[in-house]
Amino acid sequence: MSVLVMKFGGTSVATLDRIHRAAKRVAVEVAKGHEVIVIVSAMAGKTNELVGWVNETSPMYDAREYDAVTSSGENVTAGLMALRLQEMDIPARSWQGWQVPVQTTSAHGAARIEDIPPENIRAKFAEGMKVAVVAGFQGVSPEGRITTLGRGGSDTTAVAFAAAFDAVRCDIYTDVDGVYTTDPRICEKARKLDRIAFEEMLELASLGAKVLQTRSVELAMRYKVKLRVLSSFEEQSDDAGTLVCDEEDIMESNVVAGVAYSRDEAKMTLISVADRPGIASAIFGALADASVNVDMIVQNISEEGRTDMTFSCPNDQVMRAEKAVEAARERGDIRFNDLVTDTGVAKVSVVGIGMRSHTGVAADMFKALAAEGINIKVITTSEIKISVLIDRKYMELAVQALHDAFGLDKAA
Amino acid sequence: MSVLVMKFGGTSVATLDRIHRAAKRVAVEVAKGHEVIVIVSAMAGKTNELVGWVNETSPMYDAREYDAVTSSGENVTAGLMALRLQEMDIPARSWQGWQVPVQTTSAHGAARIEDIPPENIRAKFAEGMKVAVVAGFQGVSPEGRITTLGRGGSDTTAVAFAAAFDAVRCDIYTDVDGVYTTDPRICEKARKLDRIAFEEMLELASLGAKVLQTRSVELAMRYKVKLRVLSSFEEQSDDAGTLVCDEEDIMESNVVAGVAYSRDEAKMTLISVADRPGIASAIFGALADASVNVDMIVQNISEEGRTDMTFSCPNDQVMRAEKAVEAARERGDIRFNDLVTDTGVAKVSVVGIGMRSHTGVAADMFKALAAEGINIKVITTSEIKISVLIDRKYMELAVQALHDAFGLDKAA
Repeated sequence: MSVLVMKFGGTSVATLDRIHRAAKRVAVEVAKGHEVIVIVSAMAGKTNELVGWVNETSPMYDAREYDAVTSSGENVTAGLMALRLQEMDIPARSWQGWQVPVQTTSAHGAARIEDIPPENIRAKFAEGMKVAVVAGFQGVSPEGRITTLGRGGSDTTAVAFAAAFDAVRCDIYTDVDGVYTTDPRICEKARKLDRIAFEEMLELASLGAKVLQTRSVELAMRYKVKLRVLSSFEEQSDDAGTLVCDEEDIMESNVVAGVAYSRDEAKMTLISVADRPGIASAIFGALADASVNVDMIVQNISEEGRTDMTFSCPNDQVMRAEKAVEAARERGDIRFNDLVTDTGVAKVSVVGIGMRSHTGVAADMFKALAAEGINIKVITTSEIKISVLIDRKYMELAVQALHDAFGLDKAA
Repeated sequence: MSVLVMKFGGTSVATLDRIHRAAKRVAVEVAKGHEVIVIVSAMAGKTNELVGWVNETSPMYDAREYDAVTSSGENVTAGLMALRLQEMDIPARSWQGWQVPVQTTSAHGAARIEDIPPENIRAKFAEGMKVAVVAGFQGVSPEGRITTLGRGGSDTTAVAFAAAFDAVRCDIYTDVDGVYTTDPRICEKARKLDRIAFEEMLELASLGAKVLQTRSVELAMRYKVKLRVLSSFEEQSDDAGTLVCDEEDIMESNVVAGVAYSRDEAKMTLISVADRPGIASAIFGALADASVNVDMIVQNISEEGRTDMTFSCPNDQVMRAEKAVEAARERGDIRFNDLVTDTGVAKVSVVGIGMRSHTGVAADMFKALAAEGINIKVITTSEIKISVLIDRKYMELAVQALHDAFGLDKAA
């Protein structure tokens, strides 16, 4: 029998009524003949409440106890979902992480799933159970302690189960109805994508499209799990939402799949750095030691042994970055004339696997921005992505212009 | 090293502040050199909330899922208590039922503890852990499912741990400061007892003094666990509260230890029952089948083959009892002229192991009630208890009169 994994996030199980609605979706899939594994989050707000209690009790908490406390919200929804399904005459039972077992590393608070032996759940399916409701976000360490996977970890739980049970698909039910070409709040022409490649989704997820946890997309890509994002608040057909899949499964697509943005960026430039071998390592080593997430890096051509070094980081890490750089200067590790910080920038990116085979995407992008009079401050590129830093005030305009320029309002 | 068990009920861990206060009590005992096992309930109100959700989701719920959901509150307080103790530099960790493991029967919702292998916790004590914080109320079935012990089950958890670890004592911290000779709200002369025998506590507990769960007292009696009831809201000395112990450990005591009452009783009389062998079995079999908790039973002398049969039961079971008796009459199982129900009665009892060796307690009791003009409707006696049914309006008066008559305001 085919196994289907369905994951419901916190807003989708926030009340008993919503659990009921989610259970009806599960019933539809059971009626199609699937054996279903349902992964549930805690009711929206519950985990935050528990985290608050832990922080108040012990600011430098023992992560093992943090996990013991914060994992409890998922146990509640798993049991309630199983009960609701039983009320609908669907044989169901709940599973906590240690009961499956979801075997993880001992990295409490940010554990990695190592294995999910499918035998226990398969045995219950063989006995007639139709739905296994699994508490997401949690597992058990080799020492027998409860672990959690980090915030948003239930997506990862879902994908890991889909891989372990060779599921036909992993459906992620959330409060949006799919992945869009860009943020509909910024660009009214934004269009829901029917399909998107893993690599594109990874770039979009890490660029700030908060639909799926990055880790879960990586895992899905590695194990070729077909991942579907869809809304738990709408009636759904078989081809609803957005399918995140291998690029071979996408027949035809636009060169650019989507436009992403990140609002809270800062640009920092070290003016007239004394250029010598190892200087980049000295600068970015100091920033890494201070836990600054450096994103883009640009180094100008060196003239007379001096160069300008520009990088970007999140706005709220600017102070930390400035301190780290100044400290490195005081230690004599680096020399520069001035440090110029610009906290008024935003990053806009176009993403698409089509860029691999199509040339001229960067040129089209720059042309579209130039046509709107938007100055580009920094550029970086990867195989399937081009990102630019611009003045923040032009961000919405840039997103709209690029969406138009690459024809994203029309399907391929 | 000596093990001490300390149990904190829901009101004693209702907030982070109260958990802090409880942790300070634990620290005092650790400082005395004890290895401590702390049993915690869920924060007051949490379990009721979870039970409400289960009932709303599935009125005829699967007890296994009920247990999976309702056990989660204790996991939260166990983790928070462990964190709080760690903040006070006391090596502590939390244990959920399955981690210990607390092995129970599969009777979900009302499981019995079968064994608590002490090895895992002892090994951690040997490694330097000073406090094991155990989630009360829960265990694990032979099938690996989570079980709960029934409401108030954390008392039972505490006593079972005290027995398994051969603890020096089991301290039950609650919102009252001990066991009283009677309810202080009814009789202002009520006096806190320093000690009370297990047998007396059992009679008082089942008679409605809601200090300790009856099961936990039975268990303590069987394993000779010294049980102490004391307040978590007062500074405590070593001899605070009330010690529930073997009667040999009580040097001298009053003949009567306490006066108990039960307000919501009903008296039912079957008038002119056709008396024949097996008639009592026919009546009370029918009532048992209808889940009526029959308490007192009185049968008058039979005259000309007919008799009156009187029994008492909780007020809210009267309708069920009437239906059961009528149905038995319709089936022809019993014959009687009339069924008279009196829902305006209360039960008052005097309890004391001293009755075993002292005569005349019943006579003194009846005399004291007669002196106040209180008519006795039904009498039953056991080895250490005499109970009477009286009009409910005289209940407070009866309790006060008996408290005076047996000199309970003065220590032995």
